[in-house]
Amino acid sequence: MRVLAHDVPKHLNQEIEIAGWVHRIRELGQVNFVILRDRSGFVQLVFHEKPEFSHESVLRVIGRVSSNDKAPGGAEITPSSVTLLSPAAPEIPINIHQDPEKYPLDALLDNRILSLRFPKIRAIFQLQSAILHYLSAYMHSQQFFEIKTSKLISTGTEGGTNLFSVDYFENKVFLAQSPQFYKEVMVSSGLERVFEISHAYRAEKHDTPRHLNEYVSFDVEMAFIQSEADLMDFERGLLNYVFAQIAEHNQAELDAWGATVPAPGAMERAPVVDHEEAKELIFKETGKKVFEITPEGERALCDWAQREHGVDAVFLNGWPRKKRPFYTYPSADGLRTMSFDLIFRGLEITSGGRRIHELSMFLDALPKFGLTREGMSDYASIFEFGCPPHGGFAIGVERLTQKILGLANVKEASPFPRDRKRVRP
Amino acid sequence: MRVLAHDVPKHLNQEIEIAGWVHRIRELGQVNFVILRDRSGFVQLVFHEKPEFSHESVLRVIGRVSSNDKAPGGAEITPSSVTLLSPAAPEIPINIHQDPEKYPLDALLDNRILSLRFPKIRAIFQLQSAILHYLSAYMHSQQFFEIKTSKLISTGTEGGTNLFSVDYFENKVFLAQSPQFYKEVMVSSGLERVFEISHAYRAEKHDTPRHLNEYVSFDVEMAFIQSEADLMDFERGLLNYVFAQIAEHNQAELDAWGATVPAPGAMERAPVVDHEEAKELIFKETGKKVFEITPEGERALCDWAQREHGVDAVFLNGWPRKKRPFYTYPSADGLRTMSFDLIFRGLEITSGGRRIHELSMFLDALPKFGLTREGMSDYASIFEFGCPPHGGFAIGVERLTQKILGLANVKEASPFPRDRKRVRP
Repeated sequence: MRVLAHDVPKHLNQEIEIAGWVHRIRELGQVNFVILRDRSGFVQLVFHEKPEFSHESVLRVIGRVSSNDKAPGGAEITPSSVTLLSPAAPEIPINIHQDPEKYPLDALLDNRILSLRFPKIRAIFQLQSAILHYLSAYMHSQQFFEIKTSKLISTGTEGGTNLFSVDYFENKVFLAQSPQFYKEVMVSSGLERVFEISHAYRAEKHDTPRHLNEYVSFDVEMAFIQSEADLMDFERGLLNYVFAQIAEHNQAELDAWGATVPAPGAMERAPVVDHEEAKELIFKETGKKVFEITPEGERALCDWAQREHGVDAVFLNGWPRKKRPFYTYPSADGLRTMSFDLIFRGLEITSGGRRIHELSMFLDALPKFGLTREGMSDYASIFEFGCPPHGGFAIGVERLTQKILGLANVKEASPFPRDRKRVRP
Repeated sequence: MRVLAHDVPKHLNQEIEIAGWVHRIRELGQVNFVILRDRSGFVQLVFHEKPEFSHESVLRVIGRVSSNDKAPGGAEITPSSVTLLSPAAPEIPINIHQDPEKYPLDALLDNRILSLRFPKIRAIFQLQSAILHYLSAYMHSQQFFEIKTSKLISTGTEGGTNLFSVDYFENKVFLAQSPQFYKEVMVSSGLERVFEISHAYRAEKHDTPRHLNEYVSFDVEMAFIQSEADLMDFERGLLNYVFAQIAEHNQAELDAWGATVPAPGAMERAPVVDHEEAKELIFKETGKKVFEITPEGERALCDWAQREHGVDAVFLNGWPRKKRPFYTYPSADGLRTMSFDLIFRGLEITSGGRRIHELSMFLDALPKFGLTREGMSDYASIFEFGCPPHGGFAIGVERLTQKILGLANVKEASPFPRDRKRVRP
């Protein structure tokens, strides 16, 4: 029965079996130390002969545990039997026992199969796994239904120029930019409250630290709301839960990056700022007049919120209609919308809003956005047969991961990021 | 504060607010009954005037609750205020208050936006949501990490002829048939135990009740296994958990289809049958000699298992090498493999096995399957730098849903199924 590295100190003076990767070999002549790495941590092995394996090889080891204050966890193993389960090539392009920050991001991504082994990089995906779990657990606890909808669509909903096309038998279809249409179908089906965690695709050519061409979208949609205020309230509760769970269970991953999550309940304090007011705040903070909310502006707004409200997050609402998708519910004057963004630690991680649920309003909106009823006939049919008022939002899972850990580039939060030039591994 | 339909009987003699869809209108002249439907169930409204709304319209109603043994749940509401939140067109292509089985499957799928409203059909996706939750909860409880890997790949791993191609900027890429390569990368990264629930794509032209061109794949991969026996044991535990949770929490969805889950612990009794022995069993059961395990044979094997072992499930192992993917670990003689399928209620719902983790064996396997090291260089590099013995399996989520509820066609278990001709809604 294999024991994990972090449990080794519980087995002092016992003979146990462990298995893992050779993280570091230190040959001192008389005595040689080998640090073995597994999913739980590290354990030191003591050899008196020269080790006959190289870094990153995979071993199964049987040996006796003794205490050693200088070893990880205060214990080490003197092996009685070593099985080389998988030898590693002696020359490894990158050194897993160093700090990955020594390498430029492109080198880490070009050597992704190896760079994922850095414990610090692995911590990103351990945390991301936990985030996926907490998001999903909260939604199920709030009686939302989890849905999985098609990613092969015949028309886009977020603007038609940024779609990847797929050869689908005799047809041309597209990769979905979002599950927006399907979420609304499922809400109107009577499920009322739905969420989906799936891939989304944006064929945007620019390469920035904020964008991925393929990302994981956490999508929420709920019926019988009044305005975007209901959605912001819901998201506060969701994120408070996720941050609290991370603080309780994922300190090691946070520590790997020197990161912290917002204090318990902090999201309750995140201010709601009107889009026009936000531009004035940005001017006051930066001295720059802006016509739209720039990345620099997002950072300035979060600095302001941290200073004035003690939380590094701002909800922006009151967005002009022309800056939001066609399906967004307009304000009474028709010029603005019942929509919002959440800026967290200087980056937009959420976009959402109430949606149009009235057929006549939907049909009026289409030509304003260069769309036709013929092109949107399936979408329009949601509203022909009774559809409750509803709305929702989406969180980019990689961006949330990035901002929790303080990663410089969102690509670091995707195990196999896709950009214009990168389609492998 | 809105009350859900199934909670209305708790509010006898109180004035409450409810909201939902007009499921059925029965006009009797002096008194008219309206059944309102929400995500939780049904509630009867009593009107003395003629209702001024049509079927499927969405209402918000305030009214007093009184007891009525003939009403759903034993209570009904006499409205004091009715708000028509969303009117439905008076002519609806399908009648939601009828039995959906009256309609052919194509009619239900062509009118998917409406047919999802049938309570019986909605129950499929309520159960599927629960299945996704139970699968994921079990995996997290077993210390597996949830991963999300790219679906845009440069080479296939399951045989290259069944790939959809994507125009990706200046390149041609493909939609992933499975996350096999990425699961193995993540296992070898040191995460050791990973799972993913994401879409998978198969460009297969045939249209059968068993196949979808886009489906949701629940994928598992784990390190430090000895053989496929470890995987089958793990899957027994997983399915026992899922079935127990369904029995405890989803009786209503089972009842909608007259379905049951296997008895507690039943998966422990599922026999493991060698591939050659299975062909003999099929001959004994059906009188037909078979050269491979046909759909009819899968049903016969499950009938036999039900009779002999009291469970409608069979694990098949010992598959010939040429019938399994190139990455499957061969048996000692090189002709067979450490792989398995799980047949559940007459349908293969799982395929899995130990994978090759040794570079030399991997390179030997490639030409046997018409592959080259150049074409598989990223894949080969997993095994160059130390990779533990490992294996895994995948469950088709729609097939599992289908077989739990006893649906005739797997397309019924996908909200928006894709086949050769169907790409909308």
